[in-house]
Amino acid sequence: MSKNNTVRVVAPATVANLSCGFDVMGLAVEKPGDIAEMTLAGNGVVIKAIHGDGGLLPAEAAANTAGVAVLEFLKAQKLSVGIEIILHKNLPLGSGMGSSAASAVAAVTGANYLVGSPLTREELLPFVMEAERIACGAAHADNAAPCLMGGLILVRHTEPLDLISIPTPKELTCVLVHPDIEVKTRDARKVLKDTLSLKNGILQWANTAALVAGMMKADYDLIGRALTDVVAEPTRSILIPNFEKIKEAARLGGALGCGISGSGPAIFCLCRGIAAAQTAGQAIQQEFEAMGIHSETYVSFVNTQGAIIF
Amino acid sequence: MSKNNTVRVVAPATVANLSCGFDVMGLAVEKPGDIAEMTLAGNGVVIKAIHGDGGLLPAEAAANTAGVAVLEFLKAQKLSVGIEIILHKNLPLGSGMGSSAASAVAAVTGANYLVGSPLTREELLPFVMEAERIACGAAHADNAAPCLMGGLILVRHTEPLDLISIPTPKELTCVLVHPDIEVKTRDARKVLKDTLSLKNGILQWANTAALVAGMMKADYDLIGRALTDVVAEPTRSILIPNFEKIKEAARLGGALGCGISGSGPAIFCLCRGIAAAQTAGQAIQQEFEAMGIHSETYVSFVNTQGAIIF
Repeated sequence: MSKNNTVRVVAPATVANLSCGFDVMGLAVEKPGDIAEMTLAGNGVVIKAIHGDGGLLPAEAAANTAGVAVLEFLKAQKLSVGIEIILHKNLPLGSGMGSSAASAVAAVTGANYLVGSPLTREELLPFVMEAERIACGAAHADNAAPCLMGGLILVRHTEPLDLISIPTPKELTCVLVHPDIEVKTRDARKVLKDTLSLKNGILQWANTAALVAGMMKADYDLIGRALTDVVAEPTRSILIPNFEKIKEAARLGGALGCGISGSGPAIFCLCRGIAAAQTAGQAIQQEFEAMGIHSETYVSFVNTQGAIIF
Repeated sequence: MSKNNTVRVVAPATVANLSCGFDVMGLAVEKPGDIAEMTLAGNGVVIKAIHGDGGLLPAEAAANTAGVAVLEFLKAQKLSVGIEIILHKNLPLGSGMGSSAASAVAAVTGANYLVGSPLTREELLPFVMEAERIACGAAHADNAAPCLMGGLILVRHTEPLDLISIPTPKELTCVLVHPDIEVKTRDARKVLKDTLSLKNGILQWANTAALVAGMMKADYDLIGRALTDVVAEPTRSILIPNFEKIKEAARLGGALGCGISGSGPAIFCLCRGIAAAQTAGQAIQQEFEAMGIHSETYVSFVNTQGAIIF
């Protein structure tokens, strides 16, 4: 058991898919992050308060991703301790920035710490994936894994889990621009076709391979060329007004590449250096402003640590 | 102009696809290799002799991959020199080991050398691709590029060409087993479906990304796990008797992974070290023998130089 009865954990936003890596890649960024304050107290798992969600998230533990992850963890560990959770939502809901995963990761990382850290980060993943199933109907790992472990994670396989950490170059930055429009992951998945042409398949796997090579060679131009998605983006981008124009503005603004973060509506760009990320972010924000859409911008380096206990 | 009137070039066998990397990856191996003896003499491009083809290849330059590559090269360079070619075919024809590319690469590399090396290896690729179009109906680069340049090449895009050299780990070996059965590339392409499920697409691009990561991390186990093909192998393997049994024997014999080389019928395994490649090759050969099928086995390290002038 930990000496401390209370712990705080911040868990980062994540960019799932990274264009070509549909359903298999996710990248953790430094900002923003959800914070869970976890206390060993009482009976069962109780969510005492949720700040920053505008009253939209369920406070019942079994219906909230943070609660579900902790409940599943305690059940698996056969522990009957009481845990209280106070959740500070800094990630916008339904944004495609891994909001549900971040809350679950923050909470389960804290719970694991409070009971003496019996499990590794990777071993906590199944509980977060179970929470993801509650949130979006599919137990995917492409947000959960990088959120827990940091960096760029390739989910080679889910059953059994096969996670591969891909090194990213030092100057790589990411800007996330979240427009004030709502896209539900469930709806975003519905617009996807369940088959693709062999020709598009070939383009897609050439690009996932190239993206890994670009990251590991620190070849920023190659990273940019590989950030191409012929599978999900052509249909999902319909949900984002003027998507092609936004993308063009981002590239002109200095982005290596640009795409939809997760199932959107947030837009991500990978860039070289903070200054390029800032100008690319401004370019995107201006496009949204011109359409009368308010947006928030988050500029940061890659988060290489995952969730952080503080 | 070169001082020498005659040059000899050996160009290696190549394993296209490497299971998951259908149409986008190719690996050059050390053995076997086609040899072209090239001489500046006479008028036009003349194939003086072809050894080792059993009389099957056309001797007319415009119908032979070696001749086509040289003709296209001279045309592009606006050169009207005479070149004589003697071809030693050491690669079995229609084997899936890149036989047509090897002859074209050997010849065009020699021709380029004889006229003073105006072009780089990469710049010679379009001429070899044109020769590939004659041989198999598609101007693909997944044999031609590694044959010219060596190593593992990712063909990210063909128009415009975007070739990425992927470093391979030092102990990586390859065994090729060529059974005495014939599969034409044209026929092998015919059995492929022109669509695939999104689910299979996701598996395939997870594996191409993982294969690159495995190579660059020198993670041999990961290389083995990534050598999975859910796109071409399920249909193409029908053309190879007892394919699943052969694969299982190869793995038990020490292969990291095993698949169809190019469009077959040659089988390739990637292994760690020469000894493992030998035992895996023997295991496959025994399976073919048990079916009364003679086979040839080639064991080697990765060829990192491509075609070699000697």
